[in-house]
Amino acid sequence: MNSYSTEDAIFALATAWAKSAIAVVRVSGNDCIRTLSKAIRSKKDICSLQSNYALYCHLVSPSDGKLIDDIVLTLYRDGHGYTGEEAFEISCHGGLQVVKAVLGAMADLGFRQALPGEFTLRAFLHGKMDLTRAEAVDELVNAQGRTGQLMALNRLNGALYKRISQIKSTIVDIMSTVEVQLDYAEDEVGEDLTFPMAKLQKAISDLSQIHDSYNTGRLYSQGAKIVLAGPSNAGKSSLFNYFLKEERSIVSAQKGTTRDFIEAMCTIDGIPVRLYDTAGFRDASDNEIELEGIRRSKGLVDSADIIIYMVDASDMGDPDSQMTADPRCIKVLNKCDLCDRDDDGFVKLSVATGYGFDVLCSNIAQRLKGNNANYDDASLVIENDRQRENLGRAMDALVAAKLAVEADMPLDLVSMDIQEALEALGEMTGEVTTDDILDRIFGSFCVGK
Amino acid sequence: MNSYSTEDAIFALATAWAKSAIAVVRVSGNDCIRTLSKAIRSKKDICSLQSNYALYCHLVSPSDGKLIDDIVLTLYRDGHGYTGEEAFEISCHGGLQVVKAVLGAMADLGFRQALPGEFTLRAFLHGKMDLTRAEAVDELVNAQGRTGQLMALNRLNGALYKRISQIKSTIVDIMSTVEVQLDYAEDEVGEDLTFPMAKLQKAISDLSQIHDSYNTGRLYSQGAKIVLAGPSNAGKSSLFNYFLKEERSIVSAQKGTTRDFIEAMCTIDGIPVRLYDTAGFRDASDNEIELEGIRRSKGLVDSADIIIYMVDASDMGDPDSQMTADPRCIKVLNKCDLCDRDDDGFVKLSVATGYGFDVLCSNIAQRLKGNNANYDDASLVIENDRQRENLGRAMDALVAAKLAVEADMPLDLVSMDIQEALEALGEMTGEVTTDDILDRIFGSFCVGK
Repeated sequence: MNSYSTEDAIFALATAWAKSAIAVVRVSGNDCIRTLSKAIRSKKDICSLQSNYALYCHLVSPSDGKLIDDIVLTLYRDGHGYTGEEAFEISCHGGLQVVKAVLGAMADLGFRQALPGEFTLRAFLHGKMDLTRAEAVDELVNAQGRTGQLMALNRLNGALYKRISQIKSTIVDIMSTVEVQLDYAEDEVGEDLTFPMAKLQKAISDLSQIHDSYNTGRLYSQGAKIVLAGPSNAGKSSLFNYFLKEERSIVSAQKGTTRDFIEAMCTIDGIPVRLYDTAGFRDASDNEIELEGIRRSKGLVDSADIIIYMVDASDMGDPDSQMTADPRCIKVLNKCDLCDRDDDGFVKLSVATGYGFDVLCSNIAQRLKGNNANYDDASLVIENDRQRENLGRAMDALVAAKLAVEADMPLDLVSMDIQEALEALGEMTGEVTTDDILDRIFGSFCVGK
Repeated sequence: MNSYSTEDAIFALATAWAKSAIAVVRVSGNDCIRTLSKAIRSKKDICSLQSNYALYCHLVSPSDGKLIDDIVLTLYRDGHGYTGEEAFEISCHGGLQVVKAVLGAMADLGFRQALPGEFTLRAFLHGKMDLTRAEAVDELVNAQGRTGQLMALNRLNGALYKRISQIKSTIVDIMSTVEVQLDYAEDEVGEDLTFPMAKLQKAISDLSQIHDSYNTGRLYSQGAKIVLAGPSNAGKSSLFNYFLKEERSIVSAQKGTTRDFIEAMCTIDGIPVRLYDTAGFRDASDNEIELEGIRRSKGLVDSADIIIYMVDASDMGDPDSQMTADPRCIKVLNKCDLCDRDDDGFVKLSVATGYGFDVLCSNIAQRLKGNNANYDDASLVIENDRQRENLGRAMDALVAAKLAVEADMPLDLVSMDIQEALEALGEMTGEVTTDDILDRIFGSFCVGK
C-alpha cells in the first residue's frame, strides 16, 4: 500500500472464504453503482434507487452476459456507507464457486481488489472515524472472548478517543500557560506565574493508566500461549483433549504418537488460550521425523506464557530439571488415580477421572492474570502496540518536561517536550499521520474491512 | 425436524463460522421486527421503516442492555424477503466473539435456532419456490466448479421445474384421453379412439434424458474420489502435493511418513476431485498406529472412483496384483527420471521433474467423463438423488402403462400407471409432499439457508 488515493473503486469478499448460506462482496468508490449497472438485470434501474435500499436482482457476467447469481444488492450513496463513499454490497449464495464468479465479475467491471484494511482506511480518510476507532474495528473482529470484545467495542465507540482528547486538552492548557510566558517578557507576566505542575502530573498519570492497561488488553485479545510438555506417554494428548472437550489429538498408548505439535483454542476463566500439544521429549535419535517434531516443540516451549510440564505419577523417571526450574512451569502429576504419590509442587491430576482439573485451571488463570485481575467490561483498556508506543512517547516527553521544569531549565525546552507529547497523541488518534503509519495500521487488517 | 409450523421466528448465522470482516445473522418469522426493536438503539424506529431498508444502528443485549455491536440491519416486510415472511438480516462485525454475542441476543429475544434448510423450507411453504428450485439453492452453495455452478443456477432459475411441467402437461393430455374413454361407454366414443402412444413414448424419452443426466450432474457436483495407493516411499505424497501445487503432506525419505490419510480438493479438467493420500501398504505389523492408518486407507480404496496405484520405477518389487487388476486402477511408474524402465500399461511419471503429469491428468479425465463428455453450461442436468428417484418412478410407471396398452390390458389399469407417474413428478416439484420428504430434502442443507 503506497498510495492513499481514493480515486478508484475497490472490492473484496467481506465474509469468510468458506462455504456458507450467503457471502457478501463489498465495493466502494466513486461512481461504482453506475459501473455495476452494466452487470445487473432488474426491473428497477439501480442508478436511480435511493441509498440503503436492498434490491433482489440478477448479477450477470459483464463479459459474456451469462447469469452469475441471484443476489441482494444493497446500495449506499455518498456519505451513507461504511467508507463514506458511494458503495454497495452484494449478498450472494455462499458457495465458493459462486463467490469466485462474483469476485471475477467485480474485477471484470474494473474494480480493484482491496488491500487489507482499505475500506476502513477510506472511512478514516473520509473522516468517518479516528485511528483508535479504526484500529478497534480490527481488534473487535479479532476479539476472542466476551471481555476482549467489550473492550474493543468500547474503543470502537470512541471511549479511547474521548479519553485521549481530554488528556490532550489538559496538555494544551499547560502548553498555553508556557507559551504565554514565552511570548511575553518575564517582567510583563510577572513572577507569580507558576508552572501548572499538578496538571502535568495528572496528565502523566492518566496516560500511564491507559498505557499500563496494555498487558490486560493483550491478555484478553491475544490470549495466552500454553504448551503441554513432558515425557512421552505422560498423558499430554489426553489432557489436551480434556481442555478441548473433544477428541482432537490421536491418543494412543504408544510412545511418540504426536509427531508434530497440535494447536487449538480454548478459554480458561474467560482468557482465550492457545493450547499446544507437543511431541514428548524422549530420546528418538533413531527417527528423523520425530526428532523434527521434538525440535519444533522445543521452539514452542521457548515462547510459551505457561508450560504445563506433565509426568506420569506411576512412571516419573527423572523430571527435566531445566523445565521444572522454569518460572513459567506448572508441574503436573498425571494418572494420580492409579498411584498414590504426592510430590511437592506438583498439581495432582487424573485426566482419566477429571480429578484435579479445576485446580489446574485456577492455577493457570492466577498465573496469567497476575496483577491484572481488576477490570470491568467498561474499562478503558488498550491492546495495540502502536497505541502503547504513542502513549509511551507522550509520557516520556511529559516526564522530561517535568524534570526540565524542576531543574529550572529554559521554558522553550519544556515547551518542546510538551509539543512532542501532543504530537505523539495526535499520531495516536490520527490527526498527525504519515503513509508509513497508515501502512502499519491497515496492512494487518483482514481484507474486506 | 418434525413440524413445519411457520408460527415462530427462526434465526441462524448465514455466513461461515470463521473470522471475517463481516458476518450476517438472518431472522425470519411473524412479528420478528417488533420483537427485535427491544434490542435496537437508533434514532429511527425500526418498526416504521419501509421494507428492504438497511439501517446502521446499535444492537444491545435484551437482558442487560449492554452494547453488543454496531450493525447494519436490513428489514424485509411480509412477502419481500427470501422466505416470504417478515424477516431481517443483521450484518455485524465478523469476529467469532461478536457473532456469538449476536446469536445469543437472538436467542434471548425468543427466536428459535433454525434447523438446516429451514429458511428455504419456509420459502417453499410460502410458495416462493418449488422443490427443484429449493434443492438447487443447496446445490448451488455446494457447487465445486463453474460448470456445476451454472447447472445448479439453471435449476435455481426454474429450468428443471419448467421442463418437468411441460412433460407433466403431456402426461395430463394422455391421461385425459384415457379418462374420456373410461368415463363414457366404449360404444359412445367409438372404436376410433386410439391411445396416444407417440406422446407416451415422447414423455418416457424426455424423462429418461433428464434421468440419465444424473451421472454428469453428480460428477460435476460431487466430484470424483481419487485415491493414491501403492507401496511406501513410491512418491505418493509428492504426487499429492504436485496435484495441489503446495506442500500439504509431510514429505520425507523415510517409510511410513503418512500415517493417516490426507484429503484435499483439486480440479482436474474442470472436474472437482477429492484426492486422498494414503499410508503405504507396507508390512507394518509391529506398529499399531501405522496399521490403523493402513486399515483406513484400504477402506478408502474400496470407495474410490479411481485408484492411482504408484510404484517406484527404480524399486518396483512385486506390484499388488489385486490392485493392478482393479478396473478403477491407473498404474503409475514414478521416478522415471532416475531409471529407464517401460512397463506395459503403466503411465510413466516423474513427480520430481513433472514429466508425464499431463498424460496422467488426461487419463484421469477420460476415465471420469466416460460417456458423459457432452454437456454445455445451459444443459439441463440433475445431480439430486431424490429427483432421480422420482424421475425413475415416473418412467417406470409410464413404461408399465405402455406395456399394459400393448398387452390390451383394461384402461383403468393404464390410468393407474399414468396417475402414478404424475404423482412421482408432483412429488419431485413439491406439489405433492409429506413431512418425510421435506425432512429428507431440507435436513441436508446448511444452517442459515
